[in-house]
Amino acid sequence: MSKSAVILLSGGLDSATVLAMANAQGYNCHALSFAYGQRHNSELKCAEKVAKTLGVVSHVVTDIDLSTWGGSALTDSIDVPKKGIDNGIPITYVPARNTIFLSLALGYAEAIGARAIFIGVNAVDYSGYPDCRGEFIEAFQSMANLATKAGVEGDPFTIHAPLLEMSKVQIIKRGLELGVDFSMTQSCYDPEEGGRACGKCDACRLRDAAFAEVNV
Amino acid sequence: MSKSAVILLSGGLDSATVLAMANAQGYNCHALSFAYGQRHNSELKCAEKVAKTLGVVSHVVTDIDLSTWGGSALTDSIDVPKKGIDNGIPITYVPARNTIFLSLALGYAEAIGARAIFIGVNAVDYSGYPDCRGEFIEAFQSMANLATKAGVEGDPFTIHAPLLEMSKVQIIKRGLELGVDFSMTQSCYDPEEGGRACGKCDACRLRDAAFAEVNV
Repeated sequence: MSKSAVILLSGGLDSATVLAMANAQGYNCHALSFAYGQRHNSELKCAEKVAKTLGVVSHVVTDIDLSTWGGSALTDSIDVPKKGIDNGIPITYVPARNTIFLSLALGYAEAIGARAIFIGVNAVDYSGYPDCRGEFIEAFQSMANLATKAGVEGDPFTIHAPLLEMSKVQIIKRGLELGVDFSMTQSCYDPEEGGRACGKCDACRLRDAAFAEVNV
Repeated sequence: MSKSAVILLSGGLDSATVLAMANAQGYNCHALSFAYGQRHNSELKCAEKVAKTLGVVSHVVTDIDLSTWGGSALTDSIDVPKKGIDNGIPITYVPARNTIFLSLALGYAEAIGARAIFIGVNAVDYSGYPDCRGEFIEAFQSMANLATKAGVEGDPFTIHAPLLEMSKVQIIKRGLELGVDFSMTQSCYDPEEGGRACGKCDACRLRDAAFAEVNV
């Protein structure tokens, strides 16, 4: 079997770096993005550019409308906070988002014969989301190998989260080393008409502070 | 918090019985069905009838097109086997289907404040699917409580799989006791035009043998 991987690609800087890392490790990369009713769906255009530029075997965009049930500032008519990063789990948390994304990646991976799934979660700079922690990734992997034909037949899946213990600055430096053009990426939760970043939401603050530190 | 539950409702006899059981336990039931590109999508009409007749607080049908990547006789142009039940995992296995369904149910449950999720998996009569086993359900529940805001904040989710250790005959008897009208349900994987069951696929064989034994 060829060394294929499914890469969750959002259009942000983390997943772009992950795709570059997986490419550098020699994987045949199949990118997977989701139109999930996010208010920042201009990120999907970024995902497309990133996939084209860094190179992938295929790029699939799947529709799953999580705004059907809302419950998050990213998919609902709740305002995105812009006054700075608070403690605790933020209102931009989308219920079970990474579980849903990884589950679909798992189905896709099994269907195409890939056993590696890459996700750009990161627990260091921003540990507010429960589904961005190592414990969650490990539990998902164990579950995945009980859930699937490949898993129970001894050809297990591995969930790769190479950014898990990296700071935003480390991620940007690694991406630059691998030739990622970060001007193609978008992190903003609430971009203006035309896709311009707001500069005030948590994602913009983290991104801007890290770029300032790297001097880019 | 009111005692709310999300019920995965396919339109088959198992999930109809599960809905009746959850109702009997006093839950406010929110039914969730999926249009996932299944060739037997006439089951969704059955799900609607079952939800209306047994009574639910709401019924949501979510689109997720798993036929984008195929890999199963239920979502692809692979023939559904009709010569009898074989050993091993059948070709009607849909990669990661129950993981995907439970993940979406988890997001929905968290968004509406429900902590109980009901699924009609059954490991006795038909143990061919890895994601119909108790080990999988337990692993999913553990993962879910690491993945979610509610889970990490000490208000955990429970995945209820009340049919897990029941035979098809026991399931039908329990459903009849609870007033389920099984004529509204559909189990066939490959129904004819108009929704008539083929009578030959694994799902039809299991259903018909069980009804014959119950004398209905």
